[in-house]
Amino acid sequence: MYKGARVETIVSISWETLLDGVKKGNVRSLARIITLVENREPGWKDAMKSLYPLGGKAKIVGITGSPGAGKSTLTNAVARDFVARGYTVGIIAVDPSSPFSGGALLGDRLRMRDVVTLPEIFIRSMATRGALGGLCQGARDIARILDAFGKDVVIIETVGVGQDEVEVVKAADLVMVVCVPGQGDGIQALKAGIMEIADLYVVNKADREGADEVVADIGGMLDISDNGGRPQPPVIKTSALANQGITELVDALVQGFESGRNADSWQAQRVKEEILTLVETEILDYLRENWERTGDLDKAVEGILEKQTDPYSVVDSLLPLIREASRSKETT
Amino acid sequence: MYKGARVETIVSISWETLLDGVKKGNVRSLARIITLVENREPGWKDAMKSLYPLGGKAKIVGITGSPGAGKSTLTNAVARDFVARGYTVGIIAVDPSSPFSGGALLGDRLRMRDVVTLPEIFIRSMATRGALGGLCQGARDIARILDAFGKDVVIIETVGVGQDEVEVVKAADLVMVVCVPGQGDGIQALKAGIMEIADLYVVNKADREGADEVVADIGGMLDISDNGGRPQPPVIKTSALANQGITELVDALVQGFESGRNADSWQAQRVKEEILTLVETEILDYLRENWERTGDLDKAVEGILEKQTDPYSVVDSLLPLIREASRSKETT
Repeated sequence: MYKGARVETIVSISWETLLDGVKKGNVRSLARIITLVENREPGWKDAMKSLYPLGGKAKIVGITGSPGAGKSTLTNAVARDFVARGYTVGIIAVDPSSPFSGGALLGDRLRMRDVVTLPEIFIRSMATRGALGGLCQGARDIARILDAFGKDVVIIETVGVGQDEVEVVKAADLVMVVCVPGQGDGIQALKAGIMEIADLYVVNKADREGADEVVADIGGMLDISDNGGRPQPPVIKTSALANQGITELVDALVQGFESGRNADSWQAQRVKEEILTLVETEILDYLRENWERTGDLDKAVEGILEKQTDPYSVVDSLLPLIREASRSKETT
Repeated sequence: MYKGARVETIVSISWETLLDGVKKGNVRSLARIITLVENREPGWKDAMKSLYPLGGKAKIVGITGSPGAGKSTLTNAVARDFVARGYTVGIIAVDPSSPFSGGALLGDRLRMRDVVTLPEIFIRSMATRGALGGLCQGARDIARILDAFGKDVVIIETVGVGQDEVEVVKAADLVMVVCVPGQGDGIQALKAGIMEIADLYVVNKADREGADEVVADIGGMLDISDNGGRPQPPVIKTSALANQGITELVDALVQGFESGRNADSWQAQRVKEEILTLVETEILDYLRENWERTGDLDKAVEGILEKQTDPYSVVDSLLPLIREASRSKETT
């Protein structure tokens, strides 16, 4: 991340220069474009428009699972294996961070340092709170930039099993769920809608006691779910630290690239959601800005706190503003 | 939940009758109003408008923590203790559920059955995916209805530590974070921005080995965080199953009600976010409906899949529709 005076230096570099750099394979231009797009700097949408046609080739792998499952180490090992096979890799690490400070409490970034040393791997961490366009859209944008840059594989690693994390991995072509033995109700952690979107299960830290039980538990849950007609996902045991099972895992991923969720209906649904998310963000950004400026939002809040009105009535009365909002967007 | 023919029966009962029932303390009317509001049935906003002035008294407690921490059992024990002290209690259990089926894989509902038998406790579970207005707004709406119904305490229990779950508990007056010994990197689970919003820590299953270490770990993390100038949150050991530590916990909650996050600035921020969420949902709902009907969205998706355009260009071109959307909202 760039701070203070450096920000201005970067912004003063034209988008054109940066886009040109990205097209030429310049890693620093890539990193800067990502920062600018992530921060929704003016011109970000035009930059995305011009990058879009360059992409469409990368395979996107989503890695998720409960905290402490060793996802970062696994991501590292998988990325290295891909590189050994001749693929270039981009990693997006989605870091849950503070709603107030915006900073991660424990840095997964630190642990992934040794990945950075391979020139074929580009790693980017994303604060869940820093994403101005939303976590999911932010990850999508970065994946698309990495795709346009020419990465063959983009790995999106999300920490946690919450709702937003599920949304993020839904942007992937293949979703890999990581479990570990000995995490209390291990299988409980799979509740958050993960099972239906998993293409592959990994039982990591498989050298620990209880690994086979976890494999059996997953098998049992797969047996009782109908899986929407898709083939039963494989369950693979790994020990990322000992580099065991990684070859099998990457084999399965490569195989999955061919048969993954590339069905047209799935793609169409994804695109639909993306359009709606983008529109939503555009409108909200405008409203937020406009209402802050006019003081209308503050007045409404005051009225609610003083019990003169309620949020539901305020929303009904504020709708005319939206017309104005969309009108100004059109003319700019 | 109501299925098939019963839905129509319910909808045919007038809002007025139901609102009247809620005001008179009728539990069945309460359950039905919640369902109708949750499903965003026509008239839901007017219902909320008329319920709003009745509330504002309930204290809202958010309970969160990693999966398997025993939150449901703890919620149960806390609710019973509140009842023993003369409070009436509402519980909202936010269940992570499938993004496809909408159903929970493992039902926390089942485990909480014995709570339902106390007439002073009303329990409602919420599928994270069923919430048409968003998870957070859905929980807020239900909390408000329970408040209007006259509940003294509303407990919102969220499973998981994801981003959305953090949002949900931010709607609470007091946030309680539950940890347990022996959950791998126990403290890691606290990463997702929870620490900054916790008013109280509970180390549950404290009869297990390692409980004191967890207490020490939390203490250590609290020592290095500045906590935004707020007093250091207490750390309480409980064993919900053995009903140990519950009195101390509820004592701390009651004390917290007096000193909690009731600062005006906090309340104002909450209200602001709520207004924006409501507006956002209104617009999106309309767009979704309108675009589905006209086929515009499908056409756009097709163009993107055929690489004739991209999502960013589509959004720019679709903005005029929004003006129309907001106009129709005004005149209806």
